[in-house]
Amino acid sequence: MKNNSLKEIVRAFRKYDNYILSTHISPDGDGIGSELALGFGLKKLGKKVTIANSDPFPANYEFLPCDGMLKNREEIKGSYDVAVSLECPGLDRVGKMKKVFLKSGRIINLDHHMSNEFFGDYNYVDDGSAAVGEQVFDILFELGVKLDLNIATCLYTSLLTDTGSFSYSNTTRRTHEIVIELMKYGVNPSEVNQNVYEVSSLGKIQLLGRAINSLCIDERYGIAWTVLAKKDFEDTGTNYSDSEGIINYARSIKGVNIAISFTEIHGERVKISFRSKRNEIDVNKIALFFAGGGHKRASGALQKGTVNEVKEKVLKKTIEVIKSVSAGFKLKPVLGACGTLTKKKR
Amino acid sequence: MKNNSLKEIVRAFRKYDNYILSTHISPDGDGIGSELALGFGLKKLGKKVTIANSDPFPANYEFLPCDGMLKNREEIKGSYDVAVSLECPGLDRVGKMKKVFLKSGRIINLDHHMSNEFFGDYNYVDDGSAAVGEQVFDILFELGVKLDLNIATCLYTSLLTDTGSFSYSNTTRRTHEIVIELMKYGVNPSEVNQNVYEVSSLGKIQLLGRAINSLCIDERYGIAWTVLAKKDFEDTGTNYSDSEGIINYARSIKGVNIAISFTEIHGERVKISFRSKRNEIDVNKIALFFAGGGHKRASGALQKGTVNEVKEKVLKKTIEVIKSVSAGFKLKPVLGACGTLTKKKR
Repeated sequence: MKNNSLKEIVRAFRKYDNYILSTHISPDGDGIGSELALGFGLKKLGKKVTIANSDPFPANYEFLPCDGMLKNREEIKGSYDVAVSLECPGLDRVGKMKKVFLKSGRIINLDHHMSNEFFGDYNYVDDGSAAVGEQVFDILFELGVKLDLNIATCLYTSLLTDTGSFSYSNTTRRTHEIVIELMKYGVNPSEVNQNVYEVSSLGKIQLLGRAINSLCIDERYGIAWTVLAKKDFEDTGTNYSDSEGIINYARSIKGVNIAISFTEIHGERVKISFRSKRNEIDVNKIALFFAGGGHKRASGALQKGTVNEVKEKVLKKTIEVIKSVSAGFKLKPVLGACGTLTKKKR
Repeated sequence: MKNNSLKEIVRAFRKYDNYILSTHISPDGDGIGSELALGFGLKKLGKKVTIANSDPFPANYEFLPCDGMLKNREEIKGSYDVAVSLECPGLDRVGKMKKVFLKSGRIINLDHHMSNEFFGDYNYVDDGSAAVGEQVFDILFELGVKLDLNIATCLYTSLLTDTGSFSYSNTTRRTHEIVIELMKYGVNPSEVNQNVYEVSSLGKIQLLGRAINSLCIDERYGIAWTVLAKKDFEDTGTNYSDSEGIINYARSIKGVNIAISFTEIHGERVKISFRSKRNEIDVNKIALFFAGGGHKRASGALQKGTVNEVKEKVLKKTIEVIKSVSAGFKLKPVLGACGTLTKKKR
């Protein structure tokens, strides 16, 4: 359970030569951007770097440079001096890469989740960082790596996506300072934004339409949720990664305290995402109760069962948590009510 | 047709004492944020400041501080040493405030649109500024005004909204540098973002659903458009300002070159917005053809007629413009086709 200092981590990176880097299952912009940036940086120091993840990149991150470092998980053979996990609170989060991690000489664990389990031989966990990309920026700086357009683009993608375009409460002056540094190396914000956010498809927008049709509100407690069933993905020709961000529509409604999305995935499982709009409400607690985790304002969990069973359990627990803290703030009734949309359209 | 230097503008602001400030009809975050920030700044120098606009603030900007400066247009009596227009390419854009402007001693015109008509006695037009808020930041700095949380929040709102959360091509390192300055005065990005972007309603989200249902694509030229009729606003209990940003859904589709939104407003008029996703395609030209204006990548116009008549004329002209420049790039077929959604849902 020891957290290492930046200097100790940098010393470790200097010492070893042969690296495998992985981020979490269902990789996102921070996991991908930070592993690629670290990979490019280590290569500049003459290290051998392989990147492999349990799941493939979502299509909208395929524009990122990877210079031959990225391998399919199946191609990974042999062992490595160091396995580095990026943005994984627990070792299970590297998914099918866990075997490779356990076979490697040592593990370096880079993360910014307060729920991190410090499973590494070296751990560099900083929940004050908006993104693991900020931590990698510091590591590369301390390692004396001169940035370039490739590294800067990967780090910008990491910061952009994990701060919700610099809008979430994790965004600091330091985040903007790093962006300015990255722009000096030629990062084009509008190009990256187009690549990351503007590669939608009619199917993806139809999926959003399905989610909007399912939107429901409990106006007593300010809970808004959406439900996407397997059929919604099949009908629109989309997959789970196309539903990223849909929770923000529920979150955006005035008076909502917690937004939740329920998404059916293969194997009778339901992915639950939570967003809190109030400092007083810690959705990490709700996620932990359902064997998940994350941050105070954004967390997630996975449950077996039908979407209706899971929804009932989760809403019950969510109401409990809101009740337990709502003495600290006045519950305002939400404009509109549960079923306003669903009654009309479903 | 003279553009003044920052120093000349600052000298004018030092010289005169009694100000009326206005932004354009259908005011947006930049117009509102920059007029409020300038107002607060001038007041700190002991000037008399009144702010009045042709149209009221959209509800999502009502959180901004205004310290009694903001008056209803009808309350405006008497005359002013100086009338300052913010973000108005032409004097007509101040709408019903034009009379007051013509009666005032002189006009200062602050804008960042290249189509500006230099109608002021003083003009400070800088199309290199991402927002008029950046120009106001410079003016206040030169005037020696010490910023505070009120001014900083207004300027942050201006920069945030006119750069599409720091994602549009107008975003520069300077934009982020100014954000860092503003955050030093305690601006809370997540609070401002919640106020500006997360005050949606079920009605607004239903309106988005309507727009998604209308989404249509011309896959030969990569044009995507949405149509909102008066009935859509009536049915969902929303108004024009609730449709802001809907064009981004059309814009977000991979392969789209130009996104257009057609919105019926009162008096048999159709508001047309254009977004270009390619440097080669200048939608300001299309807007100018329809007596509108704006920027190369984002512009708008207003036309009399039914939405179908207007749509036909505008699409014809848009195809002409794309054809005239498409030698410079390869037209890629867009995934999905016109009517994929409309056939199913309408």
